[in-house]
Amino acid sequence: MSPSLRDKIPVAVLGATGAVGQRLLALLADHPFFEVAELGASERSVGRTFADAVTWRLETPLPEVVAGKVVSPCKPEDLGAPLIFSALDRHQASRIEPLFAAAGRTVISNASAFRMEPDVPLVIAELNPDHLALIDIQRKKREWEGCLVAHPNCSTIGLTMALAPIHRAVGVRSLVVTTLQAASGAGYPGVSAMDLIDNVVPGIQGEEEKIESEPMKILGSLEGDGVAAAEMAITAHTHRVPVSDGHLMSVSLKCERPISPAEAMEVLSTFRGRPQERSLPSAPEDPIIVLNEEHRPQPRLDRDRGKGMSTTVSRVGRCSVLDLRFEVLTHNTVRGAAGGTLLIAEWMHSEGAWR
Amino acid sequence: MSPSLRDKIPVAVLGATGAVGQRLLALLADHPFFEVAELGASERSVGRTFADAVTWRLETPLPEVVAGKVVSPCKPEDLGAPLIFSALDRHQASRIEPLFAAAGRTVISNASAFRMEPDVPLVIAELNPDHLALIDIQRKKREWEGCLVAHPNCSTIGLTMALAPIHRAVGVRSLVVTTLQAASGAGYPGVSAMDLIDNVVPGIQGEEEKIESEPMKILGSLEGDGVAAAEMAITAHTHRVPVSDGHLMSVSLKCERPISPAEAMEVLSTFRGRPQERSLPSAPEDPIIVLNEEHRPQPRLDRDRGKGMSTTVSRVGRCSVLDLRFEVLTHNTVRGAAGGTLLIAEWMHSEGAWR
Amino acid sequence: MSPSLRDKIPVAVLGATGAVGQRLLALLADHPFFEVAELGASERSVGRTFADAVTWRLETPLPEVVAGKVVSPCKPEDLGAPLIFSALDRHQASRIEPLFAAAGRTVISNASAFRMEPDVPLVIAELNPDHLALIDIQRKKREWEGCLVAHPNCSTIGLTMALAPIHRAVGVRSLVVTTLQAASGAGYPGVSAMDLIDNVVPGIQGEEEKIESEPMKILGSLEGDGVAAAEMAITAHTHRVPVSDGHLMSVSLKCERPISPAEAMEVLSTFRGRPQERSLPSAPEDPIIVLNEEHRPQPRLDRDRGKGMSTTVSRVGRCSVLDLRFEVLTHNTVRGAAGGTLLIAEWMHSEGAWR
Amino acid sequence: MSPSLRDKIPVAVLGATGAVGQRLLALLADHPFFEVAELGASERSVGRTFADAVTWRLETPLPEVVAGKVVSPCKPEDLGAPLIFSALDRHQASRIEPLFAAAGRTVISNASAFRMEPDVPLVIAELNPDHLALIDIQRKKREWEGCLVAHPNCSTIGLTMALAPIHRAVGVRSLVVTTLQAASGAGYPGVSAMDLIDNVVPGIQGEEEKIESEPMKILGSLEGDGVAAAEMAITAHTHRVPVSDGHLMSVSLKCERPISPAEAMEVLSTFRGRPQERSLPSAPEDPIIVLNEEHRPQPRLDRDRGKGMSTTVSRVGRCSVLDLRFEVLTHNTVRGAAGGTLLIAEWMHSEGAWR
Repeated sequence: MSPSLRDKIPVAVLGATGAVGQRLLALLADHPFFEVAELGASERSVGRTFADAVTWRLETPLPEVVAGKVVSPCKPEDLGAPLIFSALDRHQASRIEPLFAAAGRTVISNASAFRMEPDVPLVIAELNPDHLALIDIQRKKREWEGCLVAHPNCSTIGLTMALAPIHRAVGVRSLVVTTLQAASGAGYPGVSAMDLIDNVVPGIQGEEEKIESEPMKILGSLEGDGVAAAEMAITAHTHRVPVSDGHLMSVSLKCERPISPAEAMEVLSTFRGRPQERSLPSAPEDPIIVLNEEHRPQPRLDRDRGKGMSTTVSRVGRCSVLDLRFEVLTHNTVRGAAGGTLLIAEWMHSEGAWR
Repeated sequence: MSPSLRDKIPVAVLGATGAVGQRLLALLADHPFFEVAELGASERSVGRTFADAVTWRLETPLPEVVAGKVVSPCKPEDLGAPLIFSALDRHQASRIEPLFAAAGRTVISNASAFRMEPDVPLVIAELNPDHLALIDIQRKKREWEGCLVAHPNCSTIGLTMALAPIHRAVGVRSLVVTTLQAASGAGYPGVSAMDLIDNVVPGIQGEEEKIESEPMKILGSLEGDGVAAAEMAITAHTHRVPVSDGHLMSVSLKCERPISPAEAMEVLSTFRGRPQERSLPSAPEDPIIVLNEEHRPQPRLDRDRGKGMSTTVSRVGRCSVLDLRFEVLTHNTVRGAAGGTLLIAEWMHSEGAWR
Repeated sequence: MSPSLRDKIPVAVLGATGAVGQRLLALLADHPFFEVAELGASERSVGRTFADAVTWRLETPLPEVVAGKVVSPCKPEDLGAPLIFSALDRHQASRIEPLFAAAGRTVISNASAFRMEPDVPLVIAELNPDHLALIDIQRKKREWEGCLVAHPNCSTIGLTMALAPIHRAVGVRSLVVTTLQAASGAGYPGVSAMDLIDNVVPGIQGEEEKIESEPMKILGSLEGDGVAAAEMAITAHTHRVPVSDGHLMSVSLKCERPISPAEAMEVLSTFRGRPQERSLPSAPEDPIIVLNEEHRPQPRLDRDRGKGMSTTVSRVGRCSVLDLRFEVLTHNTVRGAAGGTLLIAEWMHSEGAWR
Repeated sequence: MSPSLRDKIPVAVLGATGAVGQRLLALLADHPFFEVAELGASERSVGRTFADAVTWRLETPLPEVVAGKVVSPCKPEDLGAPLIFSALDRHQASRIEPLFAAAGRTVISNASAFRMEPDVPLVIAELNPDHLALIDIQRKKREWEGCLVAHPNCSTIGLTMALAPIHRAVGVRSLVVTTLQAASGAGYPGVSAMDLIDNVVPGIQGEEEKIESEPMKILGSLEGDGVAAAEMAITAHTHRVPVSDGHLMSVSLKCERPISPAEAMEVLSTFRGRPQERSLPSAPEDPIIVLNEEHRPQPRLDRDRGKGMSTTVSRVGRCSVLDLRFEVLTHNTVRGAAGGTLLIAEWMHSEGAWR
């Protein structure tokens, strides 16, 4: 399970100086499968050492192993690693990621650019690793030697993690979700402090559309050349709140068949995915932690559970309008971005990629 | 409409040193109908001047007219005013308010103690002033010379203000509401700073039950000796957020008959109540202000509209799960407490009470 | 004192869409001396109505009188008003303001670009209106038909207001000041929310130099062709804190001659300037409000005193290291920017300018 | 260095359910020298399991080893451990701690009750472990079989850590310090959220007296039967800011002999204490971390350095009023309370106590 150092897969991080890029580098320090070989960023940073180019903003120190590396342009000819983690924004991603995939690399992307493309797997490692079979179709269709795998939106992740066990048990038909999202979801500098002092802001740009569509693809099943989306109606009310990390959501949902709160808590707390079976390095022991407390989950107290990879659910109860209600919390830059992306790569590694 | 000074009705405020009491005193300074004659508070404050007893925490200065008044015990024999504003907490209110009502006073209460009693009118001045007819029944049943009128919970207020015009137009059958509530809703000191720095807290004690029951009484109709509650199912997800004043709520609702977002905006923005018809001093020109902006309402920017008495609605749209969705904001200590209570008294005054 | 409408001086605001520009427009609505005739802003806004170009972020509504005005370029040929309020940033100001002054306009600037120029008066209306005499020298030297008057930095204002009465009484020799500054001081979007959630940031760019030099010029006296700066040593430690408006500062200072805390409180609380003598519209009754309370001033509770134009001082006591200590608070975008600039214009108007 | 399990010293924690008590229990989980044998708390908690009695508020989970322990009264007859960590408040401490010391226990106290008693050592493990020699005098004077050792105030800690190397090098004569202190310094619930939303509060009760006296005792030297305090004048301006953990301070100081900023940075960054020499478990590798960055230290980014045990200094420069200026940050509940107390115990253990 822990290969010798020379066996480690070299990886490159695109958008390395940004918020998600920094989290990725922190998680990749001393990783048993991967080692950061190259860093890509925008013009402004190219040619400088990473320590010089970045405004490091994590609570943990900048990993020494990357501090002295010189930042390269985000071009396949400048970055040779077979595995590419992309923390680019949507616009950059739409242009740059296909170049790497065409050049034979595996791109695991945190951007929204290709998530809803029929031939691009949109993956949460515990929920639908089988969707990676789309890669074959993708390669044929696009004539790529490499491939592109997408990671969902940071709000989608926590919501879908909590939906999946219930959906499998009794079928989720529809749901209303209201989010209270952390500032880090908008990157750095992102949201102005003037908007979040003594204030919350409703309506996050582009977020509601993602939450209202991505879960159906993830929970869907492979059929023919694509994914048959789960049939489900979702309405999302989004809000930015004065929290640094951790997206909290309240959910009311309607099911195909009856389920009691106790049964829901049971299927949630006993849920395990295949990354847990294989004890992948970033797989939390409990993908979903169920609490039975009135005033939880709270972002500051619960976001770091399972090293930021566990989703926390509490306040599971009957909804008098639909069927079931609960609150769910996920660390948006770990499980909801960098860590979730890394777990997909670990899964692919365990499946024999890059050998 | 503006009586000479000697005609002003003397009023007493119970719980004068608390957060809602302070707001009441600020709103009652220079009021055309009422003048603060007496202040009641707990043992600790009795016998001291108000300026000495209170930790004044509003942005506006302590009104000079009350600064030198000596605080009295909350007993009918110590306070002679015919009109009593009660800002007591639930437990004190349940014991003390009936004593004043029995002693011939009109008690307008902000506490939850009697709200759901069948013979106690639960009133929002624009929505159901006709429920004040319950006073006759109340007096007979309880053998009171005075009476007790209840003001709803601070979250109920904003929600019900926004529901009423839609309910009258097409009938609201059910709704899911998620609240992002200000710290001031818990009074002072109320919530610990440790709970609201880089954090939000789900599940406000006792709040969900109130939001899930009070609107049906307010929107109900007088029948026989009581109120026939509106038939409606409500599920409330509550949260405390790091905001000083202003409760924001996201709502998804199902109606009896179809209504488009444009129609909903129309009935909301054109809504006027009888306090507006009579131009009562605390009645905002627009009880409901409808915006057509993606990132509003915001607590800091919109809570003071209409001097804190207007409810602001935006993001009205179709809900793919139920029928209609929107965000609604109310200033919880003005419209949602002190100002709402005062407006009830102004209405009763315009109806000839205390003459 | 209140001229008929047709006598009002037309004014233009440069940088009208920014944070300080918005405050200026709010303060100029219904002003007895001035009326907003024109709005200047950057390319992006030119040609659009103000309501369309601006993201209005004040708690008070956008004044109707400016909502429909079309935004012009910041050029003397496009803006004809004789009085120009400049809310431009330093770089724009250094280029644009001289063009207006050369073209015969009176420019009152909130930017730092020309503050320390020997022939530019740096004015707090209550403290050194006599420095406006530099305008004659300025016109000769620069061959301008108009003139340029500078308003100090937002932290300088509160500090110097509190220093002046003490300096006049006993001479201030040196002081250590530590600031806790509001986010609005950096404009909008300004500081990232990620920097001010559960955090404070020391070291505001360029701020310490200003605080350590501007007070000496303001407290200096006219001598020959310039201002002889007051002899004083200042060390400033600056911090950005999670507050929307209101700069708080702790001060320890050393004086030429002894002064007791009681004497200091006396000279501070009795201080009045010439704007108070003339009852100028924006002059607060009390330029300095002295409290005798341990836990004040507080930004949220005290920044709006005197409609945001009063400076609040409390905790005056002996400093065991230097001589005297106190805390001082000023509303940074009202007294510290828009309001202070306006008060200079009101003073000049009362002196007969623009007749 | 790592004794077998049966050699671990059993310890009791007084005030175990409070904020500092919780931190202590988290730090004591898996400690190589000590094991938590007993928990003491107030009446309300006695007889309940710790998990039931506590509202656990740390980001790390409640240690399983203490979850099931039954809480005892804070009396020597109910708690048998030889080593007592006291996280009691001042009033409880003044009554209870002497009972344990009289009963032969070593009490290491975080309370202020006995800090300034001449025969009580006030200790920072890196700075003055030699002051523990006062224990002999204390035992004689008070006829105690055990002893009482005091840990300084949470603001004193960070300040004195940064002062010590400079004081040793060139003698510190006087200083002005302004604090920006975290909410956790007031315990839980402590400060009201209403005081720290869009606000800061000057003047922390009792704090300035402590900061202005404790450093002189810690930096003093043993003479005869007590400590000759260092001769130094300190003025402290304190503020509570909306930060969860981490006290930030700006310091301007005057020295006996000249020191350049570079020299100061050198003596600070090379400072090591005897706990470092002995590699005690809680001793950070670098007691003081010196940065050379304009916008650091920041509470959220720097408080956890050295697992919360390192003090961070930056912005070292010349002070134009006194001699030297800098900013210093310490984690107030780790280094400034629980961790600092534990390090004293580790030092005493390394000296042979409890053998």
